[in-house]
Amino acid sequence: MLNTMARHLGKVKATKALGELALIDRIRRRSAASAAPALRLGIGDDCALVGLRPGEDLAVTTDLSIAGRHFLLDAHPPEAVGHRTLARGLSDLAAMGARPVAAFLSLGLPRELTLPRGRGRAWVDDFLDGLLSLAKVHGVPLAGGDLAQSPLAVADIALTGTVPRGRALRRSTAKPGDALYVTGALGGSAAGLERLKSLVRGRTTAPKDIPVRLRERLAPHLFPQPRVAQGLWLQRHRAATACIDISDGLSTDLAHLCDESSVCAEIDAAALPLHPGATLDQALHGGEDYELLFTARPDTRVPKTIAGVEVKRIGQMVRRRAGRPKILLTTGVSRMPLEPRGWQHFA
Amino acid sequence: MLNTMARHLGKVKATKALGELALIDRIRRRSAASAAPALRLGIGDDCALVGLRPGEDLAVTTDLSIAGRHFLLDAHPPEAVGHRTLARGLSDLAAMGARPVAAFLSLGLPRELTLPRGRGRAWVDDFLDGLLSLAKVHGVPLAGGDLAQSPLAVADIALTGTVPRGRALRRSTAKPGDALYVTGALGGSAAGLERLKSLVRGRTTAPKDIPVRLRERLAPHLFPQPRVAQGLWLQRHRAATACIDISDGLSTDLAHLCDESSVCAEIDAAALPLHPGATLDQALHGGEDYELLFTARPDTRVPKTIAGVEVKRIGQMVRRRAGRPKILLTTGVSRMPLEPRGWQHFA
Repeated sequence: MLNTMARHLGKVKATKALGELALIDRIRRRSAASAAPALRLGIGDDCALVGLRPGEDLAVTTDLSIAGRHFLLDAHPPEAVGHRTLARGLSDLAAMGARPVAAFLSLGLPRELTLPRGRGRAWVDDFLDGLLSLAKVHGVPLAGGDLAQSPLAVADIALTGTVPRGRALRRSTAKPGDALYVTGALGGSAAGLERLKSLVRGRTTAPKDIPVRLRERLAPHLFPQPRVAQGLWLQRHRAATACIDISDGLSTDLAHLCDESSVCAEIDAAALPLHPGATLDQALHGGEDYELLFTARPDTRVPKTIAGVEVKRIGQMVRRRAGRPKILLTTGVSRMPLEPRGWQHFA
Repeated sequence: MLNTMARHLGKVKATKALGELALIDRIRRRSAASAAPALRLGIGDDCALVGLRPGEDLAVTTDLSIAGRHFLLDAHPPEAVGHRTLARGLSDLAAMGARPVAAFLSLGLPRELTLPRGRGRAWVDDFLDGLLSLAKVHGVPLAGGDLAQSPLAVADIALTGTVPRGRALRRSTAKPGDALYVTGALGGSAAGLERLKSLVRGRTTAPKDIPVRLRERLAPHLFPQPRVAQGLWLQRHRAATACIDISDGLSTDLAHLCDESSVCAEIDAAALPLHPGATLDQALHGGEDYELLFTARPDTRVPKTIAGVEVKRIGQMVRRRAGRPKILLTTGVSRMPLEPRGWQHFA
């Protein structure tokens, strides 16, 4: 719990790091400003308390982000690290069709990331800006967590959300004959990371001022938008038979969907919504797009956009059969098995 | 989510670490064996699902454990690291009077801790043994989490538990005149750590075989018992007016209770239940005892033992007044203010 933040910082105080106590105050103040009705008790006690309405279940997910593995301190602006930390968890809720209720942040940071740099702001201030801005968009308060000094920067986000009982979107419920859809565009995050890496080559700190012309291209990587509204829409309209979010790349996450549902899939390369500037390879295997991949009965009318985001039909599910590849990719001229080659972070 | 474990390990698999896939299977099997009724969906999807009965709230807490800060790879046996990781979260639930429902583990590990050592077991196997053994005692399934390779070993535990609405034990509800109680004994963890450190001096790995005569003395440090049953008892019998767990030491956690309740406290040194072998200083400031510190109305009959653990009255709460110290410690001959000097991990 964030009370534990206070504890740890209480200790740190003994060695004169006053900026960190101010940080705790800031977190408490900022998180208090965005309380959700289902959150009955936030920061300040041993646990937070979450209430449910009758007939609701609580969805829970945790996602760990580690410096050098999920983000690069010398490449990713701190606001983007904060945004991406929360986006990972929100995307898991979206994939279940759950409404976010409260977030919990366990944060381990090297001392220098908590000390003021230019304009009196520490790395962690900008990290929290990014995280809390996205939290505000989705109306999800930061309700607790833990804080510790650590030689390596690590951030674990736990997200809770509500979903009507029996209505959560699952991975395991796709059927042969179902159509396969994806929200938004694919490959934009992998393409953005490539550009970011070339931008920062030779630098030792993340760029402060990314040129305007590059911001748009980097946005899918730095500030991916979890498809919470789209997942909720699918859940409320009972439009999807199964759903997963694309965090490790289409080829890998579709393989999970096939495995859990005991079906195979066929996708049409020409139908894939490539992000401008992304290659087919990045769209198939690039991770961290945080789009939703879902199936629907063939007679379900799936709209062309859901909550302002385009939805494309990219293939269909087929029966599992001996010798049939788990995923078959068809292009204009050929048909080939698609192996899961989920993108490896900073490989 | 642990599905994310599968994702990360999917990637790792590409570089031929088969032992890790076996590990995932083991986690899934072992966690499936201990499902609680309130856990409607465990490992295998984007989120786990938790249900509540009408009139219940869900308590949520997260606690981060970092190598070199919360545990020492060259001193703490891996079973103890796993046990302590879960104990921290269970103790927060205990302090709220909540019944544990499900645990979520985000685990970042260096590769070598996942590779078999002697007898084909990896460090992480023994870590999970310790964590899952304690989980079994408290009937709490491991319902999800995340797994990643990391240069530094980190484990974040998220715990969920249920408590009847409006009945959670709080830190902020102690009143002047209330009596102050503590469960079990104090200082045993700090004293155990001292012994452990002298035992491992000059070694590079944690001791495999701790001499039998030492095990009992080290137990309060290596395998602290979170007071879940005692917290539940206090909640059900409406016996406590306020409660907190002692994770950072009596002086620091009592100061939290005083701050949140806007009261002062007086404690009697002679009444403190010192763990055999512990000093008064360790009992006052040594952390990680994970006992419960609670207040009760003066007319409440608090039993001498709760669920097999002794309970001692150690003082009382008094009105806040200008010039009065937050905590006054009385010994046979003197009265002195007690400053919060919570124990610093491995300082």
